[in-house]
Amino acid sequence: MQTEPAADQNRAYSYLGPAGTFTEAALKQVAAAVGQEWRSVNNVGEALADVTSGRSTAAMIAIENSVEGGVSATQDALATVPGLRIIGEYLVSVNFVLVARPGTTLADVTTINAHPVAYAQCHTWLGENLPAHAHLPASSNVQAASSLLDGSIADAAIAPPGIVDHYDVEVLARDIGDNRNAVTRFVLVSSSRVLPEPTGADKTSLIIELPSDEPGALLAMLEQFSTRGVNLSLIESRPIGDALGRYRFVVDIDGHIRDERVADALLGLRRFSPNVIFLGSYPRADLQAVEYHAKYDDGIFIEARDWLRGLLSAEPEA
Amino acid sequence: MQTEPAADQNRAYSYLGPAGTFTEAALKQVAAAVGQEWRSVNNVGEALADVTSGRSTAAMIAIENSVEGGVSATQDALATVPGLRIIGEYLVSVNFVLVARPGTTLADVTTINAHPVAYAQCHTWLGENLPAHAHLPASSNVQAASSLLDGSIADAAIAPPGIVDHYDVEVLARDIGDNRNAVTRFVLVSSSRVLPEPTGADKTSLIIELPSDEPGALLAMLEQFSTRGVNLSLIESRPIGDALGRYRFVVDIDGHIRDERVADALLGLRRFSPNVIFLGSYPRADLQAVEYHAKYDDGIFIEARDWLRGLLSAEPEA
Amino acid sequence: MQTEPAADQNRAYSYLGPAGTFTEAALKQVAAAVGQEWRSVNNVGEALADVTSGRSTAAMIAIENSVEGGVSATQDALATVPGLRIIGEYLVSVNFVLVARPGTTLADVTTINAHPVAYAQCHTWLGENLPAHAHLPASSNVQAASSLLDGSIADAAIAPPGIVDHYDVEVLARDIGDNRNAVTRFVLVSSSRVLPEPTGADKTSLIIELPSDEPGALLAMLEQFSTRGVNLSLIESRPIGDALGRYRFVVDIDGHIRDERVADALLGLRRFSPNVIFLGSYPRADLQAVEYHAKYDDGIFIEARDWLRGLLSAEPEA
Amino acid sequence: MQTEPAADQNRAYSYLGPAGTFTEAALKQVAAAVGQEWRSVNNVGEALADVTSGRSTAAMIAIENSVEGGVSATQDALATVPGLRIIGEYLVSVNFVLVARPGTTLADVTTINAHPVAYAQCHTWLGENLPAHAHLPASSNVQAASSLLDGSIADAAIAPPGIVDHYDVEVLARDIGDNRNAVTRFVLVSSSRVLPEPTGADKTSLIIELPSDEPGALLAMLEQFSTRGVNLSLIESRPIGDALGRYRFVVDIDGHIRDERVADALLGLRRFSPNVIFLGSYPRADLQAVEYHAKYDDGIFIEARDWLRGLLSAEPEA
Repeated sequence: MQTEPAADQNRAYSYLGPAGTFTEAALKQVAAAVGQEWRSVNNVGEALADVTSGRSTAAMIAIENSVEGGVSATQDALATVPGLRIIGEYLVSVNFVLVARPGTTLADVTTINAHPVAYAQCHTWLGENLPAHAHLPASSNVQAASSLLDGSIADAAIAPPGIVDHYDVEVLARDIGDNRNAVTRFVLVSSSRVLPEPTGADKTSLIIELPSDEPGALLAMLEQFSTRGVNLSLIESRPIGDALGRYRFVVDIDGHIRDERVADALLGLRRFSPNVIFLGSYPRADLQAVEYHAKYDDGIFIEARDWLRGLLSAEPEA
Repeated sequence: MQTEPAADQNRAYSYLGPAGTFTEAALKQVAAAVGQEWRSVNNVGEALADVTSGRSTAAMIAIENSVEGGVSATQDALATVPGLRIIGEYLVSVNFVLVARPGTTLADVTTINAHPVAYAQCHTWLGENLPAHAHLPASSNVQAASSLLDGSIADAAIAPPGIVDHYDVEVLARDIGDNRNAVTRFVLVSSSRVLPEPTGADKTSLIIELPSDEPGALLAMLEQFSTRGVNLSLIESRPIGDALGRYRFVVDIDGHIRDERVADALLGLRRFSPNVIFLGSYPRADLQAVEYHAKYDDGIFIEARDWLRGLLSAEPEA
Repeated sequence: MQTEPAADQNRAYSYLGPAGTFTEAALKQVAAAVGQEWRSVNNVGEALADVTSGRSTAAMIAIENSVEGGVSATQDALATVPGLRIIGEYLVSVNFVLVARPGTTLADVTTINAHPVAYAQCHTWLGENLPAHAHLPASSNVQAASSLLDGSIADAAIAPPGIVDHYDVEVLARDIGDNRNAVTRFVLVSSSRVLPEPTGADKTSLIIELPSDEPGALLAMLEQFSTRGVNLSLIESRPIGDALGRYRFVVDIDGHIRDERVADALLGLRRFSPNVIFLGSYPRADLQAVEYHAKYDDGIFIEARDWLRGLLSAEPEA
Repeated sequence: MQTEPAADQNRAYSYLGPAGTFTEAALKQVAAAVGQEWRSVNNVGEALADVTSGRSTAAMIAIENSVEGGVSATQDALATVPGLRIIGEYLVSVNFVLVARPGTTLADVTTINAHPVAYAQCHTWLGENLPAHAHLPASSNVQAASSLLDGSIADAAIAPPGIVDHYDVEVLARDIGDNRNAVTRFVLVSSSRVLPEPTGADKTSLIIELPSDEPGALLAMLEQFSTRGVNLSLIESRPIGDALGRYRFVVDIDGHIRDERVADALLGLRRFSPNVIFLGSYPRADLQAVEYHAKYDDGIFIEARDWLRGLLSAEPEA
C-alpha cells in the first residue's frame, strides 16, 4: 500500500493510553501497526504533537461517539493544528464493565470511580442496581480501574472490557452502558500528504468556515454538495471561539477527492469559504460502497470538460 | 478584430428584406458590413441557410422585441440548425409611421395595409384617429408600404420610418406605436467558431433542454447559474414540439465564456442537461459592463483549482 | 354544477370566429354551451370585452399551441384585463387541409391564401408538393378559405378541417401540417368568481411578476412551488413591455387552490411578488389525476396549523 | 409580566449548585427570583425534574459556551424531557481564578483540583506558570474549591470568581482562562405554556429531527427558514443515539413565534419534520433588536392571507 511506509522501516503509533482503553482497541485493528512501537499518551494534543513532530508515524484518536456526539477536543485540534491528514477510520463498540478489587461483591459497592462521560452513559444501570452509590470522578476510564489497586477510596470502577487484560480486577457486571449499540468512531491521523487510494467505499473529512453569519451562508455551503450529488454523513458545528454565534463546520462526505463530483464540490467550497481544511479521503470503516446517482459519474464530468475545452479552443481562421 | 475576416476579403450579409426594414437598420450598425454585399432574404430560415451554406458571412436576425417578446421563429431556428454562433447584438428602436400615396390625407384613409404584429402595436393610435378603418394584412412592414404603389386596395400602410428612403410614399403620421420605448433586439449570426474577445460587457446565449419534466428541474437549472453568481437577462420557454408540456429554454446570461464563473456554469449545465447549445459569447449592444460579486472573480476560481491540484498531486514518499 | 348558471338562463359564448375555426371546435366541447347563443368575434380582445361587459357568459380563447408555444396575445390580455377567471380547459387537434374552389386541382394552384402561423406550420408539405407557390397572407384561417369564394386572386387556402361544413370549397389535400401531433389548448374564460369544484385532476393558472431583475428572483419564485411539492406544467416569460429585460411569468401548476399545498404556495407567492394574478383553478382537459408526494397531503397542512395554534393559544395561568 | 407568576406566590428556582457556580451567577440576573427559594441541584437532569414535577417554578441551566460549544447534556435533556419551555436567556462571563487555602503561595502548588472542562480552558496559563503541576479531577468547579478545606490532597483549585463569597479560600491568580471573552449562555426553563411577550429582540429555540438521512434533508430544513427571511443564530447537530449518522438539530432563530415569518417557518418545519420540538420564544440576553428584510413584515403575511381568503370565499351566484 503506497499510503504506508515500507515494512522494514521502524514506525511508532500514538494513542490515548494507558493500555486497555478503547483507543488501544481501535489501534489493534490497524494491520500496519502490528509489531511496531505504540506510544501511550495522555490526550489528543500530545497524540497529534507526536505526529507533527515526526515522533510517531500516525496517531489514533476518537472523533465521534454515537451517544455523546463529536469529540470536541479532537475536532478543535484538527481545525487548528496544520498539516494533518486522516488516513483511516475504525469503529469500536463501547461496552462498559463494573470492576472491583478481587473479593468485592456488588453489595459492597458504595463509591464508584469513573470518568464523567462513562459515568453518564451508565446512568440507568446504576440507578437500578446501585441507587445509593457516590461518584468519584476519574480522569480516564483506565485510571478509574487502576486506582482501585492504588489505595483509592472507591470500591468499584467503570472501565472498558479490555481492562482485565492489564489489571488484576474482577468484573462485577458486564454491559452496564445504557445504549447497547454505542459505538465510537476513531481516525488514524498522519502527516503524510499521500492520499489513500480510492476504494469505492470512501469518506472525505472537511472543516469549513462560513464566509459570515449572513442568513443563508450554511444553506449556500450545503448547496455546494447537493448540486454535485454528494451526501453528507456528518455535520457538526463548533464555535470558532472568538464570539458566540461564530461557527466552523466539521463535515464528512461520501466519496474520495479523486471522485470527480467530490473534487468539484471541493472547488466550489474553496471558492465559497474563507477557510476550508481538507482532512483527507480514506476508506470507510463499514466498507459500504458509496451510492450516488449516475448523473454524477466521473464520465459526465470529464465529458463536460472536453465539451467546454472544445468551445474555448477554436482558433481564428488563418 | 479576430472575429471578423480580413478587410480585403469579399463578404456577404443576409438580412430580412427588402430595403427599409428594421433588420436593415440593424445591419447598418455593423461596421464590418459597410461596402460589402447585402443579401435581402424572405425569412429567418433563408438567412440562416445562407450562413450554413457559406453564401453569406453572417446574417442579421431579430431575436427579441420589448413588446412582443422572443421571436419564436428565430429561437426555434437557433435550437435546431446546427453550427451557428451569435457574434454581435444590435438594438433598433421600433417606431412606426403611417404612409400613403402622395396626395392622400388622413381623412381619406379607410383601409390600412399592415403586418399583423405592427398593426397590433399601433392599436391605440388607430382606435383614436381612425376608428372606422379596415385592416388588410401584409406579409411584411415593407411590403405593406410598397404595395400602395402597386395597385393595392389599401389607402395607407404602417411601416418603419426608413421606408421613405426607398419608396415614394408620404408620411401621414409619425410615432403611431403604442409604446414609445419599444425596441427590437437583433443578433448577427455566423458559422465561425472563433469567439469574440471578452470586453467586460458581454452576453452569452444558450438553449437548454431540461432533463425531464420532474418537479424542480427548472430550479436545478437556475441553481447552476445562481451558485456561480451569474445573472440571467433573458429566459424564455419554447415548446420542443413533440408534446404539450415539454420545453426547452432560451437563456441569455451576463458574461463571456472566457469568464471563469460563466465557464464553470456551462460545465454544470452540460452535466445537468441532456442537450445544451452554446450560441455564443459576444459584446452587449448597450455596452454596460457586467456586474458581479467579487467572490466570483476569475482569481478565486484559479486559486481554488491550484489548491485542489496541490491536494491531488502529492506523490508517495520515496 | 355550481360553476355554471341555471339551465333556464339565457347565456352567450364568445369565440374567435367565424364558424369553422379551431376555437369553434373547442367551444363545441362545452356541454353548457349547447343550444345557447354563440358570438363570433374577431380577436381575443373582443372576446374578453364581451365577458367583462357581461355581454357573454364566457369566452373561448386559445392559450397555447404545442408547436408555436404560448399565444402571446392571450397571455398579455389575461395579464392586463382585470376580473377574468379560467373555468375550463379544452384541447383541439390542429390539422390543416388545403381547400380550393370546386373544380380546382392541385396542379392549378400557384397562389395560396393562409394565415402566417398556419402557413408556417405547413412549410414542409408545401415545399414538397407546391415548391413554386406564392403566399398571400390572410387575417384568419377561415377568412383565407372564404375569400376564395369572394374574388380572391388566390387559387387555394389553408384551413381547418371543419371549413367544409360552412363554405362550398373542396379539399385538395388533408393533414398537410408538419406536426401530426399538434394540439392547441383553449381555455374558457368567465367573470364569475365562483371556483370550479376540485376534481383531483385540476390545474391552476397564474401570472406572476418578479420583484426585480436581481439575480435569483426567478429561483426564489420557483422555490415557492418546490418547497410545497407543487409541479409546474407550464412556464412562459412575457415581456412586461416597459423595457427589455423585464418579464412576467405565465405559470400553470398542478392542483386546485382548495388543495392546501397550492393555497400555501399562493400565500408564498403573494408575499414574494409585487403582482400575482390568480387566473383560476379548473379541471384539466386530459383528466389526469394530479400526483404529489404524501408529505404534501392536506392532512399534513391541517395538522401543522393545529399544532401552531396550540402553541400560540396558551393563556396566562389564572 | 404575564410570563411570571404573581409576586405574592411562593416560588422556587433550581440551579446547578452549590452556591458560587456560574449558574448561580446567571440566576442572580433574574429579577423575579429575588427573595425566592433557590434550590441547589447536582446536574441538569435534577434541575429539569424539579420543573416537570412542580417542585420548582423554573430552572437555570447552561446551554452553550463560547469556547466549548453546546452543552450536550442540556441539549439532549431538552430533546427528551417533554413539557419544557425556555422563558429567558442570560449570559455570564467565564473567568477563572486559582484559589488555595489561606497562606498558600503559587510556589507551593503542585496538585490542582479542577473540573476537566475548566482545567482545559486554563491550559495556557497553567503551562506557563505551573508547568510541573498534577491534575486532580473534580466533579464541579465549586467542589474543586470546597474540597481544599475538606482534606483534599490538592494544593489549589480552579474556580469561578464568586467562590470567595462562599468559601474561606484565597485567590492566587485571576483571569487564568485562555480566552478572556469566554461567555456561557444560560436559559431559564419552566413548564408554563404561557409565551413571553414579543419584545422585538427575541429568540426562538427549536429541536428538529430530519425526515431521513437522504441527501438534501438538511438543506430542505434550512430552506424553511431562508424562504421566510429567518436568520439562524445557532445550529448544532446531536446524535439521536440509536446509530451513527442519525442526528437531530438544535436551532436558535431570530424572532418570536408571534412574528408571522417565524410562525410560518414553524408551520413549514412541522410539515417537513417527523419531530420538531418548540422550546420557546423569549427575549434575547443581549437585547439586540432582530433585523429582517421589510418583505417579511407581519403586514405582508396578513395581506397575503386576506387575499387568499378572498379568492377562496366567493360563493355561487344565487
